[in-house]
Amino acid sequence: MIIIGELINASRKAVAAAIESGDKQTIQKIATDQAQHMANYIDVNAGIFADKEAEYLTWLVETVQAATDVPCAIDSPSPKAIEAALKVHNGTAMINSISLEKERYDNLMPIIAGTDLKVVALCMSDDGMPVTVDDRLKIADKLINGLLQNHIPVENIFIDPLVQPLSVDKTYGKGFINTIEAITLKFKGIHTACGLSNISYGLPARKHLNRAFMIQAILKGLDGAIVNPLDKGMISAIVAAEALAGKDDYCMKYLKAFRAGLFE
Amino acid sequence: MIIIGELINASRKAVAAAIESGDKQTIQKIATDQAQHMANYIDVNAGIFADKEAEYLTWLVETVQAATDVPCAIDSPSPKAIEAALKVHNGTAMINSISLEKERYDNLMPIIAGTDLKVVALCMSDDGMPVTVDDRLKIADKLINGLLQNHIPVENIFIDPLVQPLSVDKTYGKGFINTIEAITLKFKGIHTACGLSNISYGLPARKHLNRAFMIQAILKGLDGAIVNPLDKGMISAIVAAEALAGKDDYCMKYLKAFRAGLFE
Repeated sequence: MIIIGELINASRKAVAAAIESGDKQTIQKIATDQAQHMANYIDVNAGIFADKEAEYLTWLVETVQAATDVPCAIDSPSPKAIEAALKVHNGTAMINSISLEKERYDNLMPIIAGTDLKVVALCMSDDGMPVTVDDRLKIADKLINGLLQNHIPVENIFIDPLVQPLSVDKTYGKGFINTIEAITLKFKGIHTACGLSNISYGLPARKHLNRAFMIQAILKGLDGAIVNPLDKGMISAIVAAEALAGKDDYCMKYLKAFRAGLFE
Repeated sequence: MIIIGELINASRKAVAAAIESGDKQTIQKIATDQAQHMANYIDVNAGIFADKEAEYLTWLVETVQAATDVPCAIDSPSPKAIEAALKVHNGTAMINSISLEKERYDNLMPIIAGTDLKVVALCMSDDGMPVTVDDRLKIADKLINGLLQNHIPVENIFIDPLVQPLSVDKTYGKGFINTIEAITLKFKGIHTACGLSNISYGLPARKHLNRAFMIQAILKGLDGAIVNPLDKGMISAIVAAEALAGKDDYCMKYLKAFRAGLFE
């Protein structure tokens, strides 16, 4: 499982305040905490600062990279902000994200074409959010083929089929994970990634649904997720689910995570 | 999910003591607690008292039924003890369990043939525990066909493919749940049931594996389990997993369990 640590996001008040005041220490503490708790990428998001997004995103990348070797996931819908942040990033960043929306696609593809960047691709088009498994697969197909034609290796692509709330339709959980399974079977070596918490939107005790959804999605092939690595309940769910899915020889990763105190 | 409450088992010291001293109050408290926490059957097991098993099992059934309308799961490998307990049971009991072991099969089948009892059938033969999915399916096939020929309706049959520890082989988790899926697809209307905790034998922090395994098994069709209904972490895992598997219209069961304080 490739874990993208979600905590450096300006929609969180403490993060926004640290960005505005140039408080490197706070940002670096959040970065290193996540790196020590199994994060493979540190997400950086300054989306709330519309006109200063590029500047702040660049500062976030520099600040995080001064504290940890774990690469950044540059989280923005803006090609301009992504391009600026990439200029200062050392190593191989993840870009979060491209989609089939025409303007986003046309502006971002030239920036990432032919690079070795990891690319998250959202199953979203100008027609809005897809609903059925088939709709999602059609968009995923187009995205993957477009990325391959632009020389992004298949193993650098992370498809996000987009989670929709179970409270809206009881089939949305199974629909999502069946899409994960279909993509994983169709495109050998491809990755999938998503934020899961939308599944529990509108329902109480959301952590139970979020963890159970993660556990089921892993069984069907999900191998990337944007989560809070400091959420021990979620980390233990991930590690246990991967062992049960047959992905952990001799339960070594499970035992290692347990011994490192990463479990709830 | 059909929940079999596991707590009235003489292998637990307090239960053994209550049985030996004829302490009805203790047994009845455990029975009603489980009934109030979603148990559909109250398991009764007096297996440690070899020569007094039939007598004690009968007493347990009478004691439990004086306190709750929830029926018993009569849990014994001994046809003699099962027969004695059935004589005093009101309503439709569950029998736990028949298997393909010749002596057990030949002695128990005449007792249950043509009844409306719920029957747990273990995928075990005189050749020992099956290992592969195919081995399990072959035994399940024979058991199901034998039960059907003896006029047990398919919807009264609960197949238990037997969980084996993940620490022994990393494929045992997936092997088990793939068997659940295959049985569920092949025999329409049949149930599956199991005790899950063997999956985590030999590993630390077992609750994480047990819950994650339950969540994955439910996705593949598991619809019965013997668990501790007072384990709120397990109950919330079950209720969340069933909602995600598309089995909970408008998340009503999820909301009801949450409001009843059954969640962790």
